[in-house]
Amino acid sequence: MTLVRDDSLAAALRPSSIAIVGASDNPHKIGGRPFHYLTRFGYRGRVYPVNATRAHVQGFASYPDVATLPETPDLAIVAVPADAAPAAVEACARRGVRAAIVMSSGFGETEAPEALAAQERMVACARQAGMRLIGPNTQGFANFEVGAVASFSTIFLEIEPADGPVAIVSQSGVMSAVPYGLVRARGIGVRHVHATGNDADVTLADTALAVVLDPGVRLVLLYIESLRDPETLARAAALARERDVPIVAVKAGRTARGRAAARSHTGAVATPDRIVDAFFRAHGIWRARDMHDLVACSELYLKGWRPSGRHLVVVSNSGACGVMAADTAEECGLPLAVLDASTEARLARELPAFAALTNPVDITAALLTNSGLFGNVLPIVAADPSADLFFLGVGVAGVGYDVERFARDAAAFADATGKPTVVAAPQSSVGDRFTAAGVPTFANQTDAIRALAQLVDHTALLRVPRLGRHTGRPLHDESQPAQYEAPPVPRGRGPLLSESDSLSFLRACGMPVVDYRVCRSEAEAREAFRALGPAVVLKACSAQIPHKSEHRLVVLNLVGEDAVIAAFGDVSRAMTALGAADDGVIVAPMIRGRRELALGLQIDPAFGPIVMIADGGAYLEALNDSAMLVPPFTIEEARDVLMTLRVAPILRGVRGEPPADVESFCAAAVRLGEIGLAARPQLAAIDLNPIIVRSDGEGAVIVDALVERRSP
Amino acid sequence: MTLVRDDSLAAALRPSSIAIVGASDNPHKIGGRPFHYLTRFGYRGRVYPVNATRAHVQGFASYPDVATLPETPDLAIVAVPADAAPAAVEACARRGVRAAIVMSSGFGETEAPEALAAQERMVACARQAGMRLIGPNTQGFANFEVGAVASFSTIFLEIEPADGPVAIVSQSGVMSAVPYGLVRARGIGVRHVHATGNDADVTLADTALAVVLDPGVRLVLLYIESLRDPETLARAAALARERDVPIVAVKAGRTARGRAAARSHTGAVATPDRIVDAFFRAHGIWRARDMHDLVACSELYLKGWRPSGRHLVVVSNSGACGVMAADTAEECGLPLAVLDASTEARLARELPAFAALTNPVDITAALLTNSGLFGNVLPIVAADPSADLFFLGVGVAGVGYDVERFARDAAAFADATGKPTVVAAPQSSVGDRFTAAGVPTFANQTDAIRALAQLVDHTALLRVPRLGRHTGRPLHDESQPAQYEAPPVPRGRGPLLSESDSLSFLRACGMPVVDYRVCRSEAEAREAFRALGPAVVLKACSAQIPHKSEHRLVVLNLVGEDAVIAAFGDVSRAMTALGAADDGVIVAPMIRGRRELALGLQIDPAFGPIVMIADGGAYLEALNDSAMLVPPFTIEEARDVLMTLRVAPILRGVRGEPPADVESFCAAAVRLGEIGLAARPQLAAIDLNPIIVRSDGEGAVIVDALVERRSP
Repeated sequence: MTLVRDDSLAAALRPSSIAIVGASDNPHKIGGRPFHYLTRFGYRGRVYPVNATRAHVQGFASYPDVATLPETPDLAIVAVPADAAPAAVEACARRGVRAAIVMSSGFGETEAPEALAAQERMVACARQAGMRLIGPNTQGFANFEVGAVASFSTIFLEIEPADGPVAIVSQSGVMSAVPYGLVRARGIGVRHVHATGNDADVTLADTALAVVLDPGVRLVLLYIESLRDPETLARAAALARERDVPIVAVKAGRTARGRAAARSHTGAVATPDRIVDAFFRAHGIWRARDMHDLVACSELYLKGWRPSGRHLVVVSNSGACGVMAADTAEECGLPLAVLDASTEARLARELPAFAALTNPVDITAALLTNSGLFGNVLPIVAADPSADLFFLGVGVAGVGYDVERFARDAAAFADATGKPTVVAAPQSSVGDRFTAAGVPTFANQTDAIRALAQLVDHTALLRVPRLGRHTGRPLHDESQPAQYEAPPVPRGRGPLLSESDSLSFLRACGMPVVDYRVCRSEAEAREAFRALGPAVVLKACSAQIPHKSEHRLVVLNLVGEDAVIAAFGDVSRAMTALGAADDGVIVAPMIRGRRELALGLQIDPAFGPIVMIADGGAYLEALNDSAMLVPPFTIEEARDVLMTLRVAPILRGVRGEPPADVESFCAAAVRLGEIGLAARPQLAAIDLNPIIVRSDGEGAVIVDALVERRSP
Repeated sequence: MTLVRDDSLAAALRPSSIAIVGASDNPHKIGGRPFHYLTRFGYRGRVYPVNATRAHVQGFASYPDVATLPETPDLAIVAVPADAAPAAVEACARRGVRAAIVMSSGFGETEAPEALAAQERMVACARQAGMRLIGPNTQGFANFEVGAVASFSTIFLEIEPADGPVAIVSQSGVMSAVPYGLVRARGIGVRHVHATGNDADVTLADTALAVVLDPGVRLVLLYIESLRDPETLARAAALARERDVPIVAVKAGRTARGRAAARSHTGAVATPDRIVDAFFRAHGIWRARDMHDLVACSELYLKGWRPSGRHLVVVSNSGACGVMAADTAEECGLPLAVLDASTEARLARELPAFAALTNPVDITAALLTNSGLFGNVLPIVAADPSADLFFLGVGVAGVGYDVERFARDAAAFADATGKPTVVAAPQSSVGDRFTAAGVPTFANQTDAIRALAQLVDHTALLRVPRLGRHTGRPLHDESQPAQYEAPPVPRGRGPLLSESDSLSFLRACGMPVVDYRVCRSEAEAREAFRALGPAVVLKACSAQIPHKSEHRLVVLNLVGEDAVIAAFGDVSRAMTALGAADDGVIVAPMIRGRRELALGLQIDPAFGPIVMIADGGAYLEALNDSAMLVPPFTIEEARDVLMTLRVAPILRGVRGEPPADVESFCAAAVRLGEIGLAARPQLAAIDLNPIIVRSDGEGAVIVDALVERRSP
């Protein structure tokens, strides 16, 4: 293995000895389960029960405290009530334990300040001693490679463990157990099942990084409520990408109510959900919606399929199954392959006259009479050069059908083509035989086709070149020299810069800013009109009034000097009436284009610079046709995201209009991201709305800008 | 039973005798299965195998042909190859058989004209004799109340039938079997499983009507590829609503590729999918996306739950389960109930200090130690007046937990409250016990909460008063006197009326049309400006150029007589240059408002008048922010639909703007629907874009209209 190993969690993941503080004789109590599991699942290290009130626990000699143990254990499990936990942690730290899993609840996950303070004291104590602390409020860690099951989850009694290529890391104990159960039910082995609880010291991201470094891991599943250290997760994602290990994550708290519930559950930090989406996208993490969605594509990933093409071939013994598959495929962006004429001719020789020879291929109910049809048809389809993906729908089968043979034929087919192949069979009696034959099989055909789409889309996402890798520099790592530069952000009276300061800063950054002049007299306004006309815009230039159009401080489309002078007077008087600091009046040419778009930059406290791409204008917030990107990103990535907006058809050109200059707009988006990376310490936000995007080749022009400095 | 029974399908649904033409000795051949099923599932009528080559079939005496049968059977199953089917149908018709199920494939579902012609000849022959024909290309009908299983579906061998309250009607054989299997797997009895195949004579809608009339049916599930007679389905839906029988339907062919596949599968007629949505909505039919979705809410419907409130309470032994439930609930439009302070106080006495007492209620892992927590908590929550719906999430359970007791407690709770209650348990070992206790239980909690949302939304949909019922007149029933009136549609040179003819027709219909004049000289234009100014619009009035703005035949915002005269000349010359018939120039006041919306009316060949409500302007098609309604509908229904559009926030008023006059716009939508109903024979379509909607109380004004007559 060429990767450098981060060993700080080695004591938790592969301990050579474990103490259980609060060990219980009852294997179904929190302090009893881990002891039982370590014995049962073949842990070969030494285990020391610590319990002051008993001489033996589950048949083993017990110790009154950590200090009296015959050796310093690598790992300690703390399974005592909340009020006894800090003392137990302190005892472990004093003894030199390398990692402690604190299962006790009643700390940071409550809303009580004293409970949070107690948690912080435990962390401080651990850090001072160089001990890693996992939890509190955790079900624990489990590594089935070495049987180190330091967990009290019930699921390991219900569903027998088997070591395998999957790692599960979750902030919730239950939501580590649920995907474990679902993955095991599919017959897949699971090595790591780790719950990080309150993430007080060791975080979910730390743990994700540790499992990505395990060469036996080939798929990582995460359940996240609060992402405190996105940089670490980004590092884990970068390493996973190098190792071709897909990461799939549920980030709960998608909605306001969900985030509120998460706060009261684990004291989670709330991040706007669209930032989470952008972050996952930037780092190639696939976002799942729930636990079933989290595991849905597991077999496809583990088969090693990494398809480039997206053309789907559907084969079924039911025309209706084919119709619904065509619907789902179109909705998922998987075009149906158009079969070669030669393929259709070969199919015609095998199938009844009333069967559909085009894709979706309908074998029809004739399969009941001729069990060989399935096996005869598949090799024909496999040879078709247009096929990238296969969906086999077995609508109904059973008595009278040779289902074993179908399953064998399907598995042989998938092996022969090497192309992603999924089966849907609503009857478990039928589906189980396909699963046993090694073909990924789903009860619901919608799920089957969506899994194919996820595989294709996730693979494509992981192939987007990351800019950070070009410089050899992990993203967001500020200890490295900055690649991106920007001039200093000017200082104003408050955090908001005036329009002219905002525009001049952006121009200095190389952004396509409208030509403008700041005028303080009628004579200057007249002069500006002569230089910038034939039609101009006037607007007040006060930093104190960001929403100028709502205060009638903007006058559009002025033609003729008289109109300009009159408007200059109106705007000046309006500013005086509002009592706002008068930074002059901006005169700029009236720009027309294909569409008003917008860009935004915000510096998120945890996630850093985030660029928003949006349809622009006065209703930006109300219509909310926008998406977010994590810089640095390329023009191509910006265009891909822009083209997912609802406004996209207009940008492509409709009703005889030329397309808009998307390239120039996206270049501005890229540059805005670079400004965010370079000037991050000085910036809070930049709003550019509208940006007038002209016809293709004619550019995009920022006509309105608001820069907000970071509060010192 | 007070409903009048439509008896034309009685012979197919409850035959007193059945002949099987093409009866086979092999119970796994198409002609063998029905015979086997009739024997096996307790059919008490008389069964006559017809097979010229055998004396006995499956142990029973066989007859050489239908003519030689000892009695005229009520129902004949035709299970012979396609080329022999027409003769068999003819023999049945001649003998006086009342209904024939033609299982043979190779007719209208192929794209061969001669096959379609053969199908049409069979139908004509049947109709002449007064015999109903089911199919061809069908797996057949099955009624488990009387054991009349005239079907060859394999599924009845795989999953044991039990009579019950569910009726399944499908155009696909497999897609009748799949929901049967899924419903039976949930332990629910199914009475009717009918596949209508090519719908050549008896349609899916006829069959749906027949099962709705069965007083034992309490839930109807449909699979539809092509809806040929929506009026009949509308009648079935109206009767189902009276009987409180929910109808849930999959209409496949949602996408272009899906519709293409459906055409090649059963020769389906393609209907734009949004019309299907509008039709289902109008008639209270819930649209499901796939087979699993079709059955997902079955238990909730069959419990008789018809909730009015939508406030959800979540109780779980996992905080993460609660967080995800909160997310799903918000996305489904189910607000989380805010629990009473007294409820929280009572919860505090039962739960550990670190548990969440607010909704979602987190019992925590303490459930492992105290199995009574679940039963103690539920009655407290049940007493809370704000709760309408309950979701109980059992994240993980098993050894150490008293799952039987949880299930009993949950069932007792649901019975006591009478309120909809669902459980999610990802482990089947746990879920099965809740199912056995009679609580609707799901593996995936997303599915559980979505089922609650479907129940609430579908119940609300069924409570929308249908206008047709107010007049005692079934919708779309043209044999009844028309309730709605409209003046005659003027005749033009072609199907398209000129702008002024369109506007004047609409004004005569009582629609809010802009004040305008048609001018044929500069003097008339000047006069019009004086009357209609201070700012006017000019546009050409030719019926031959519907997209005027693309030909510069529209000039906006003219102020001053000189500008009007100049524009009059420009537009007149442009019309002459285009060689278009000159119907004059329209002068109308320049109207400003809050938003440009649009309305459309189209007369669908099958579905009749359909009204489109949309965000308006030049990009109507490109941005496609629109929805459809089937008239007649109320202003409230129009508003509900309008408020689902993306433009809705702007109509409510943002950035200090007053709300738009949604009421006036919706009144115009209602009237447009009435025009469609009244003038349906003369109309093809009406486009009203833009309709300028002014601030609340100030009305909506149609400024542009295009009426298209139906081609004679």
